[in-house]
Amino acid sequence: MTKSNLDLIEECDSFPYYQTDPVAYFASIDTYYQLRVADHDYALGYVLPSVAEIFRGLPSWTLDDDERTLTLMAGDTAAERSEVVMRTVVAMRETGHFKVLSKWRNELYPVYGKNRELLFNVERCASPLLGIVTYGVHLVAYVKGKDGSLKLWIPRRARTKQTYGGMLDNAVAGGIASGEGPFECLVRECEEEASLPEALVREKAKACGTVTYSYVRDERAGGETRLLQPECQFVYDIELPEDVIPKPGDDEVEEFYLWSADEVKEAMARGEFKPNCAAVTLDFFIRHGIVTYESEKDYIEIVSRLHRRLEFPTL
Amino acid sequence: MTKSNLDLIEECDSFPYYQTDPVAYFASIDTYYQLRVADHDYALGYVLPSVAEIFRGLPSWTLDDDERTLTLMAGDTAAERSEVVMRTVVAMRETGHFKVLSKWRNELYPVYGKNRELLFNVERCASPLLGIVTYGVHLVAYVKGKDGSLKLWIPRRARTKQTYGGMLDNAVAGGIASGEGPFECLVRECEEEASLPEALVREKAKACGTVTYSYVRDERAGGETRLLQPECQFVYDIELPEDVIPKPGDDEVEEFYLWSADEVKEAMARGEFKPNCAAVTLDFFIRHGIVTYESEKDYIEIVSRLHRRLEFPTL
Repeated sequence: MTKSNLDLIEECDSFPYYQTDPVAYFASIDTYYQLRVADHDYALGYVLPSVAEIFRGLPSWTLDDDERTLTLMAGDTAAERSEVVMRTVVAMRETGHFKVLSKWRNELYPVYGKNRELLFNVERCASPLLGIVTYGVHLVAYVKGKDGSLKLWIPRRARTKQTYGGMLDNAVAGGIASGEGPFECLVRECEEEASLPEALVREKAKACGTVTYSYVRDERAGGETRLLQPECQFVYDIELPEDVIPKPGDDEVEEFYLWSADEVKEAMARGEFKPNCAAVTLDFFIRHGIVTYESEKDYIEIVSRLHRRLEFPTL
Repeated sequence: MTKSNLDLIEECDSFPYYQTDPVAYFASIDTYYQLRVADHDYALGYVLPSVAEIFRGLPSWTLDDDERTLTLMAGDTAAERSEVVMRTVVAMRETGHFKVLSKWRNELYPVYGKNRELLFNVERCASPLLGIVTYGVHLVAYVKGKDGSLKLWIPRRARTKQTYGGMLDNAVAGGIASGEGPFECLVRECEEEASLPEALVREKAKACGTVTYSYVRDERAGGETRLLQPECQFVYDIELPEDVIPKPGDDEVEEFYLWSADEVKEAMARGEFKPNCAAVTLDFFIRHGIVTYESEKDYIEIVSRLHRRLEFPTL
């Protein structure tokens, strides 16, 4: 079955919009609890009731069923709150209750307040339980032919990978840990994932904006489903010289293909791309005039949805 | 006083967001009436009460103060509805009540339904009274130096122009009339406004997405203030050869400057750009890696707000 570009966006930006469907939006919102920290009167994420339930009665946390809030009560500083969150998450991992916690990353993700202050850090694998915004970098690497047409370097994820195994990806993609800047993260990931030399990346990689969306996790993400995962991807383009061939730097990537835009579109329509990588590739096609209003009936909706305004404070 | 890039976005995308400020959003929404057509159960635009009041008792229109809707009751087809709307607007012009109607354009703008069907057309100058989505094209024309740095062609609007007189603009910008495609509109406007040859534009102009926002009209737009004007601009880039110099094709433009990115940023910070042209230029800077996360503290918010999801059906 062929997927339209809007189908691909729907898979990635799967949480309803207030603007266009308030009924579905409120029905969804009402199934979650707002994550808060004490003395901060706004949501930092949305937590499923089945997850919130596990926090009931835990020291340092308050669950309010009327207000539908889950509030971290302990800690006055980011360091103190982070310690409490870590203790909670470690304890939850030990019970084995949440599958997502079995893939411990030893990497901290940040949660920001409305004044862009760090409120706390949390172990990466626990972030979808809290429904908080996470940050990443995605790079599209391409080669320009003499006729001006573009070919894209597309990696296939190792089939043994637990999440989205065997699916197509962006040339480089990775999560931004707490305290790391997006461009520095990109330089590091380019080396690790595609063996692209640091000097080349610093010279040639170009920041091109962000792609933001609210993903509702399904089976392919692994672990619990219906967890909300709002994401902000910093997107970069790099035009590679013909003699630079990306090489998998670890066993996470099976191989790299060099495909024309049409070949990439066909693979997208077959549903072979990891959902957020399809979205980032679509953003690339739009910015480069490869997908246009004249060729794409859902152009206006797609461009907006690639840049969703998230309801939580961001970096 | 120096304006930040977020200040510039605020001037253009000035309607509150449900996501980040539901209180302000509902306070704003509640001051408007929803524009509808009969048997279509959703808003096509937001109408100020002072405007809606003038429709009270008019044949073919129903004002419902409880539901806060203004509904066009007559007409089963786009042609029939368009005729009624035209008759209404012509009658309103004759009373001289609305200042915006004094600048009659003899150009029809389309209003679409949820299935992307044309519901009716309306004279361009009346569109802000109805608060409907309007469409346009904006082109950023640039020259690439040997060192890779970009210079932008920036026109200054004639000081005699009634709206935004003397302010800076995008190389080419214009509204898309009903039935016209964005790219064809661009080709026409490039010839009319900047004397750019059709063949060059067809070969070199590149579609780069849309910039969408909800503008609340202020004094500089001319006519009534506080009218809502949601807009969708199709944005294009063109890299011009050094020997192609844009020339004003009519008396709407005073002169063209060729400015470095820094010179453009300074003029933006001085508030010299027409608000939506500042937004389109900012989108260009973001797509070209000239404004980055590392250089712009409001990067994530700005990128999202340049691509607002409008609450009305679009093309």
